[in-house]
Amino acid sequence: MTTSEQDALRVLEELLPADIVVADPDVIASYARDQSRLTDFCLPLAVVMPRTTDEVSRSLKVLHELGIPTVARGAGSGLSGAANASPGCVVLSLHRMNEILEIDAEDRLAVVQPGVITASLRAAASAVGLLYPPDPGSVEMCTVGGNVSTNAGGMCCIKYGVTGDFVIGLEVVLADGRVMRTGRRTVKGVAGYDLTRLFVGSEGTLGVITEITVRLVPGPPAAQTLVASFAGLSDAGAAVAGVIRAGLTPSLMEILDRTTVQAVDEMSHMGLGRGVAALLLVQSDDRDATDLLTLIEDICQQCGALDVARSSDPTEAALLLEARRLALPALERLGDWLLDDVAVPRSRIVDLIGAIEDISHQFGIVIGVFGHAGDGNLHPTVIFDDADPVSRAAALAAFDAITQKALDLGGTITGEHGTGRLKRAWLVRELDPTSHAVQTAIKAALDPHNLLNPAVAW
Amino acid sequence: MTTSEQDALRVLEELLPADIVVADPDVIASYARDQSRLTDFCLPLAVVMPRTTDEVSRSLKVLHELGIPTVARGAGSGLSGAANASPGCVVLSLHRMNEILEIDAEDRLAVVQPGVITASLRAAASAVGLLYPPDPGSVEMCTVGGNVSTNAGGMCCIKYGVTGDFVIGLEVVLADGRVMRTGRRTVKGVAGYDLTRLFVGSEGTLGVITEITVRLVPGPPAAQTLVASFAGLSDAGAAVAGVIRAGLTPSLMEILDRTTVQAVDEMSHMGLGRGVAALLLVQSDDRDATDLLTLIEDICQQCGALDVARSSDPTEAALLLEARRLALPALERLGDWLLDDVAVPRSRIVDLIGAIEDISHQFGIVIGVFGHAGDGNLHPTVIFDDADPVSRAAALAAFDAITQKALDLGGTITGEHGTGRLKRAWLVRELDPTSHAVQTAIKAALDPHNLLNPAVAW
Ligand SMILES: Cc1cc2nc3c(=O)[nH]c(=O)nc-3n(C[C@H](O)[C@H](O)[C@H](O)COP(=O)(O)OP(=O)(O)OC[C@H]3O[C@@H](n4cnc5c(N)ncnc54)[C@H](O)[C@@H]3O)c2cc1C
Ligand SMILES: Cc1cc2nc3c(=O)[nH]c(=O)nc-3n(C[C@H](O)[C@H](O)[C@H](O)COP(=O)(O)OP(=O)(O)OC[C@H]3O[C@@H](n4cnc5c(N)ncnc54)[C@H](O)[C@@H]3O)c2cc1C
Repeated sequence: MTTSEQDALRVLEELLPADIVVADPDVIASYARDQSRLTDFCLPLAVVMPRTTDEVSRSLKVLHELGIPTVARGAGSGLSGAANASPGCVVLSLHRMNEILEIDAEDRLAVVQPGVITASLRAAASAVGLLYPPDPGSVEMCTVGGNVSTNAGGMCCIKYGVTGDFVIGLEVVLADGRVMRTGRRTVKGVAGYDLTRLFVGSEGTLGVITEITVRLVPGPPAAQTLVASFAGLSDAGAAVAGVIRAGLTPSLMEILDRTTVQAVDEMSHMGLGRGVAALLLVQSDDRDATDLLTLIEDICQQCGALDVARSSDPTEAALLLEARRLALPALERLGDWLLDDVAVPRSRIVDLIGAIEDISHQFGIVIGVFGHAGDGNLHPTVIFDDADPVSRAAALAAFDAITQKALDLGGTITGEHGTGRLKRAWLVRELDPTSHAVQTAIKAALDPHNLLNPAVAW
Repeated sequence: MTTSEQDALRVLEELLPADIVVADPDVIASYARDQSRLTDFCLPLAVVMPRTTDEVSRSLKVLHELGIPTVARGAGSGLSGAANASPGCVVLSLHRMNEILEIDAEDRLAVVQPGVITASLRAAASAVGLLYPPDPGSVEMCTVGGNVSTNAGGMCCIKYGVTGDFVIGLEVVLADGRVMRTGRRTVKGVAGYDLTRLFVGSEGTLGVITEITVRLVPGPPAAQTLVASFAGLSDAGAAVAGVIRAGLTPSLMEILDRTTVQAVDEMSHMGLGRGVAALLLVQSDDRDATDLLTLIEDICQQCGALDVARSSDPTEAALLLEARRLALPALERLGDWLLDDVAVPRSRIVDLIGAIEDISHQFGIVIGVFGHAGDGNLHPTVIFDDADPVSRAAALAAFDAITQKALDLGGTITGEHGTGRLKRAWLVRELDPTSHAVQTAIKAALDPHNLLNPAVAW
């Protein structure tokens, strides 16, 4: 720590309640980074842990006066390095602001603090017969504030949409400590620019979110599940295309490729079968789910499925979905990993998977592919050995090739994880210069001194 | 026209293709205002009618250099005065840019120019078995560009959402003529701030939209219809609340109060019944619509419905819905009208309707109420005599009282029509000062000389 940093820390401790400023080396070390790999990070100056909006406001005001950059943090489960500490920064952790303030069953909405764990909100909604759909794989650890700030997806998106589709209002503290509200409690409303959506997905670069109002939907019946295995990846791709073309909308449609299936099998001994080149997992929570899954089963059979299993029993369904949940942990056992998050128009998903196979051969590197087939959003996961510079270089090259391929197919560099640090340099390849200039102008308008997550801001 | 205005016009005619600059007095008179009442407007300097994005860009560049304000215009069907000409402005009409560029059935999206009539897009989607849900009452005349710029609602919102929920990408020309793209063709994507949503609902104050990519949904079965009449407004309100509470989601749920029902009856002789205090119109296009409507019928009966009619025949359904379509034309026969557009949390809709009755008595003025009951979004329509200053004052006072009541009930000053000129002054009552300051900062960042729709910008 430099002398000026030490001075700043002292002022911070003086001006803020003692118990919210933590500079203990063990603590700050655990707030240095998120779950991403190969992204830059460093130790923060301190971690500030406010309990109220007022404490967030006071903290930001002081940090603003001191000119200290601030990185907001939810659970640090992000996969793009967006919550990584940057040089001389303070990490502002929202984990103490974890109250569900209101569940309004009549108006079907919830008001929560940002540090509420997503699964807790889902459970609270469920307790009154409602559903909060967003369900990222990290649902048991990530926060609603983090989900809003990344516009997190998950498995429900094919039917329900992403986090942002449920956010109707926010309380936000700006870089200089001013507190504001966006949105409202009504389902419709068009007074002023849609600032709610501007903060959604802004990765802590425009303000710190201190309260979130989300809409809830009627609790659907228990989902019914179908799992189909295929001997060829293109057969599975054809089944996905067939389901979309038939106008069927399941509530989940996930894909796992051969590498992922084998890894899961080796880890779990689920007996998913040797000859399986792709596994398709489908759920429906429609009232007429049985009919819907029968139509989807037919499509799978027509596309040459090796095997189709179905279940309406929730426990059995959870077992069938287990393969999807184990995808990343299973691939993790194969070595170090670098997880991509590209999305393409749904019709191009087979092209994308094919290209990833080519890239895997080209760079002589293992790539497991799994993801949200129904949204065209895949997580190709490059397996490599971080201790071996050659392997590491190949991994980075393969990663870049995949991301470029997604763009070439009319897709995006990030479907749901955000640009963060991992894809920051890619942004200019996706956005045209004017669009990028507008992004920068908006950042400058809201945070003129570039204090909020400067290493991530574009 | 002042001399400097004449000079400017001459420069405009010189620098732009001759056939896109129109200064003919008869023509410019018909571009002076939209469909709203009691909003300020004046004659524009000229109407510019570009045919391509390039012509929009060249026009804005010239106008920017000349410092001439520009009001973009779709069909001028707006109800808030947002497209009204302001002093010394040019109206930029997008009506010539009316091509449907692409309907991609596989990826379920459409790319259109801004001047496409909404009904044409719906028809083109329907022709390939898909649905473009947004269906404002003005669907046969309004443009997709206008819908995007107002974030238009309609009757489908209770199930499908508003226009903005379908917009995934835009091409926009900024105030200085620079062209940019927002969004993408994928269903998910989080690279950069959500500029698409920033332009949605921005009423031509941030840029001119020259191309729109929307997502389409699978074409649903033909809707089934239910019409229920009630002897008391609170009975109808209870039925709406009951449907929501039961977690049922029809694709349309509209309400008409006694004044509106009587006006429609007098106009159409539909025989809606004398003792009817409220009419509830419900549709479902779910696959199991019959079951859903049976549940809703039961709720209506339990709430004391006088009569419930149902139909699965599209022609008959159109007839049943006719009452809703005639609401405004029928009220129009009673005198001059001032149409409000407030929304409240759904649970407060009965309170709002009750308050409007009180306001009607208080000011001794007729107010017809109709609207999107399922969204808590109503259009109380104040009937008055514009030639009588007392009546006019009473109308304005009643209008203000209704808008204030919506705010008091936790609602918004505008559910779908926008602030435009009609509600511009109200914006500061809904937004807190910091939120308002951020709106202003964003406008300044994108349009520093305040040239785009300055009379509307907040
Ligand atoms: C096993 C696993 C599975 C995953 N599955 C998915 C998935 O299916 N879909 C998906 O989208 N993501 C997934 N993720 C990624 C991650 O969980 C999400 O990005 C999540 O939204 C991050 O939430 P968080 O609370 O951990 O936020 P963090 O990682 O702490 O922060 C993420 C970003 O949000 C900002 N931020 C956090 N809170 C606030 C706030 N209150 N105000 C302002 N800014 C804030 C941070 O500055 C940072 O930029 C997964 C991650 C893991 C480890
Ligand atoms: C009978 C009737 C029924 C209606 N029913 C509904 C309803 O159910 N729901 C609803 O929401 N509205 C309704 N409206 C209001 C109106 O139709 C909508 O606001 C519609 O979206 C306006 O579209 P337009 O093309 O007429 O736009 P205009 O009225 O021409 O313009 C509206 C605003 O958009 C801007 N604008 C237009 N095109 C562009 C562009 N390409 N780029 C940038 N800015 C642009 C204008 O500057 C203006 O600010 C109704 C109106 C009538 C007359």
